[in-house]
Amino acid sequence: MNTSVGIASAQRALFDTPLQFKSGAVLPRYELVYETYGTLNADKSNAILICHALSGHHHVAGHYADDPKNVGWWDNMVGPGKPIDTDRFFVIGLNNLGGCHGSTGPSSIDPLTGLPYGASFPVITVEDWVESQARLADRLGITQFAAVVGGSLGGMQALQWSLAYPDRVRHVLAIAAAPRLTAQNIAFNDVARNAILTDPDFHGGHYYRHNVVPTRGLRLARMLGHITYLSDDAMADKFGRELRGGKFNYGYEIEFEIESYLRYQGDKFASYFDANTYLLMTKALDYFDPAHDVGGDLNKAFARARADFLVISFTTDWRFSPQRSREIVRPLLHNRRNVSYAEITSTHGHDSFLMQHPHYFDVMRAYLDNVAGEFGK
Amino acid sequence: MNTSVGIASAQRALFDTPLQFKSGAVLPRYELVYETYGTLNADKSNAILICHALSGHHHVAGHYADDPKNVGWWDNMVGPGKPIDTDRFFVIGLNNLGGCHGSTGPSSIDPLTGLPYGASFPVITVEDWVESQARLADRLGITQFAAVVGGSLGGMQALQWSLAYPDRVRHVLAIAAAPRLTAQNIAFNDVARNAILTDPDFHGGHYYRHNVVPTRGLRLARMLGHITYLSDDAMADKFGRELRGGKFNYGYEIEFEIESYLRYQGDKFASYFDANTYLLMTKALDYFDPAHDVGGDLNKAFARARADFLVISFTTDWRFSPQRSREIVRPLLHNRRNVSYAEITSTHGHDSFLMQHPHYFDVMRAYLDNVAGEFGK
Repeated sequence: MNTSVGIASAQRALFDTPLQFKSGAVLPRYELVYETYGTLNADKSNAILICHALSGHHHVAGHYADDPKNVGWWDNMVGPGKPIDTDRFFVIGLNNLGGCHGSTGPSSIDPLTGLPYGASFPVITVEDWVESQARLADRLGITQFAAVVGGSLGGMQALQWSLAYPDRVRHVLAIAAAPRLTAQNIAFNDVARNAILTDPDFHGGHYYRHNVVPTRGLRLARMLGHITYLSDDAMADKFGRELRGGKFNYGYEIEFEIESYLRYQGDKFASYFDANTYLLMTKALDYFDPAHDVGGDLNKAFARARADFLVISFTTDWRFSPQRSREIVRPLLHNRRNVSYAEITSTHGHDSFLMQHPHYFDVMRAYLDNVAGEFGK
Repeated sequence: MNTSVGIASAQRALFDTPLQFKSGAVLPRYELVYETYGTLNADKSNAILICHALSGHHHVAGHYADDPKNVGWWDNMVGPGKPIDTDRFFVIGLNNLGGCHGSTGPSSIDPLTGLPYGASFPVITVEDWVESQARLADRLGITQFAAVVGGSLGGMQALQWSLAYPDRVRHVLAIAAAPRLTAQNIAFNDVARNAILTDPDFHGGHYYRHNVVPTRGLRLARMLGHITYLSDDAMADKFGRELRGGKFNYGYEIEFEIESYLRYQGDKFASYFDANTYLLMTKALDYFDPAHDVGGDLNKAFARARADFLVISFTTDWRFSPQRSREIVRPLLHNRRNVSYAEITSTHGHDSFLMQHPHYFDVMRAYLDNVAGEFGK
């Protein structure tokens, strides 16, 4: 049975109506790169928007004709017969504004200067992303999503959809998410940002014009990130105190397997990801707080929501623990929303949301079966 | 009631018998700087050795005549009438070899070259520290300590005393410690080390001769460290999502109070601590594993121990959680040692071991009362 969407191809949408960010900054025009899978039905009621997390992008499923090994980041979840079933749903993945995978971002050319935006690219928020995504929905003729789905930072975007456009989303699926960051979450982000900002190759964000990249800082940021994505237990199981060479070397080269893993992940990431995008993504995380303007009261914040919700957490996720998901569930119940909540037993920490876990996938499938039933699929 | 040891003064001990490190490296001569408080009794049975953690030193209690604000780092615990009662015990604090507070370390002059050791200072282990401490004990005529006491990395040294010199220590007090690091612990250390090692001002550890200091890297290392010293809850209580200026600035300057705190801590630390010492300390942490040579079996490792033990953990410590302390307790019980174990309810995370917490201090006091009773004090 073929369960892949097959060959994917990225599309581009140009928006030349200025977009005002929450910060007050205005982007005069921008492009979004996106992919779609499945077929939009006649009344355009079967669309699902996938929102990506910190390092994600528009290539959610399938592979490219000229690059068959480049498989979408959520290919296990999205495809024919998969939980997000492209035989039933029209699925959209996009690269967020400010990203580094094709949508307008810090490495794009600023039409005002003819140079890359760099540090001039405005600081963006989850709210701004949802605005830009709503325009893409308009362009595609989608007035209401069957569902908006996201994990981690993607989950925050899904939540924001229910607040900014209560009538444009029937279901919100927020996975391994949190309603807002804690001080500890912000602290980790700030260390990562400081690693980049203080890298001598950062040049105040204008490193493109110096033909350098703040590799050292970005690498540290990613290494640190990885620690928070994995559970203590998963790290212990996978790496423990294993030594690469079987003995201590009494030096600062790689000795423990965990060091090898982290440095490899850091090097790989720093070779392709844009440091300015990393900064923007972490700031968007820090800022998101639906209750910021209502005295910190999440009950008030979620009063606007009209969607139904599926909230999923993973037991060993310590970046956004199950407790944080319950902070989403409670105000929704307070506001008499329909909420399904699943706490999945998993050893893989925050990264669980990207993994093919039977119980997790069953929950997703069952919920989306019902969503599809609403339009008779 | 005066509960301070009053004026402290540092002393120096020169050792010119070569010390061979576990790595094979040999230090031909070295100095240790130390302080003592209280009076050594006639049969020299009332001595307590305090082992310090990553950033500690010999100045444990009291203040200096010419610097009254420079109060010892454990002054709340050590003094007349305090849990480590200097009316009863003769207390020794020292700066560990490889340190940056006076004992021979990377910033000391290598007699072979006339230049600072820098990166040439050999990588040191907990075992090496205990050797160097045993020589200091010899110098002071102490054949057996009433107790060796330490928190965190200091607790590892206290444990090692019971293994290297089972007959030279009657009681071991290991507080907020672990028998060995997990993969996650090592991972955090490796990120911190990489921040220092990749700082362009590090110069392969020979920054002294370049008249620079790898401030950026050391600052990041300390910021990261601080996250692991505090509990998520304590950070939430103390900082939450509080904004310094009351509103978002949409930039990379300090916005959240937690950022202000972390950056301040990082800056302060980087202004006085030596980066090479930081590297050495984290490596000593990584390497320590009493079971390394006995197939990973802590039961076997602790078979040599003869001391009695007090093990203390703190509920919100996630750097070395209570579970990690129980990993010390179990093999000791297996070997029929006398072990007292206290899990203290505290909101302050790993840093709890430095704080004046009533239950914690009561446990320390009660245990040490009994220790003092053994020599009739």
